[in-house]
Amino acid sequence: MNKEKIGMDLIKNRRSVRSFKEKSLSLKTVEKILEAGRWAPSGLNNQPWRFMVLEKSDKDRLVPYTHYGHVVKAADKVVLVFLDKKKSYHREKDLMALGACIQNMLLAASAVKLGACWLGEILNQKKAIQKALNCAHTLELWGCIALGVPAKRPGGGRRFPLKKLIVKI
Amino acid sequence: MNKEKIGMDLIKNRRSVRSFKEKSLSLKTVEKILEAGRWAPSGLNNQPWRFMVLEKSDKDRLVPYTHYGHVVKAADKVVLVFLDKKKSYHREKDLMALGACIQNMLLAASAVKLGACWLGEILNQKKAIQKALNCAHTLELWGCIALGVPAKRPGGGRRFPLKKLIVKI
Repeated sequence: MNKEKIGMDLIKNRRSVRSFKEKSLSLKTVEKILEAGRWAPSGLNNQPWRFMVLEKSDKDRLVPYTHYGHVVKAADKVVLVFLDKKKSYHREKDLMALGACIQNMLLAASAVKLGACWLGEILNQKKAIQKALNCAHTLELWGCIALGVPAKRPGGGRRFPLKKLIVKI
Repeated sequence: MNKEKIGMDLIKNRRSVRSFKEKSLSLKTVEKILEAGRWAPSGLNNQPWRFMVLEKSDKDRLVPYTHYGHVVKAADKVVLVFLDKKKSYHREKDLMALGACIQNMLLAASAVKLGACWLGEILNQKKAIQKALNCAHTLELWGCIALGVPAKRPGGGRRFPLKKLIVKI
């Protein structure tokens, strides 16, 4: 029952955190987050995700590429998530696997009381970012997670009611 | 600490379950799983996922469309996950959101001690399935989760070591 209650709480009460305290995360803490991503499911277990952890001046190089530069700036670390095109077997399924991987990391961040925000708009500049970071041509940027110690408790979150989401046969 | 331990355990020890006991899941149990999906993050909070829950003879109509018909047959319920094209704002980001939503449901299933398997191969027949189920033209099938009471404990799972996944700047 404890596992059920805590697990469901974790899933339902995770929220995007966009403001952070000026506190450093240890490498060990960041590894916990990446570990969670590593255990996501993927088609044929191809594990097409690759991670880059940026901090300090490396992290701040992302700021000009997004309207949410203030979130990147305030975060202690940013985890970039790439699709390894060498490992890709089906583009859409691989993207869903990346989504599962990112969600595992967001949940893990919440479990260890960190704040995290999945930034999507920055992907509009993914080619420029890949070039600026001198990424291998086999890597395609598909995820960006800002991480840090939350400065304040995020709001309640809004979702459609379940009945709006259910399609009857 | 408890939240961290249980949360991380849930994420790291979730496994695909492909064999099920002949036991019925209550509607209430299935709703817990869908609730978890509902709380996934999505770009612009567009919540592009829609769910169809199939059981009994309706569920078994999927069997001819996949090499994993035995898993569908053995499962008590199947949750189909659709992309609502009316809500879509960016195809790739929406697919990642669907992956996050599916992962929430897989984790929730594990949290309530159910077995679940994310079936990907069945998507090869998605157009035929959409037609057979008489789905609205705005709905596109992108996920299929077999659900039931696990018949046996699944194996250990294999993943690349973290160091293989990390790209240095």
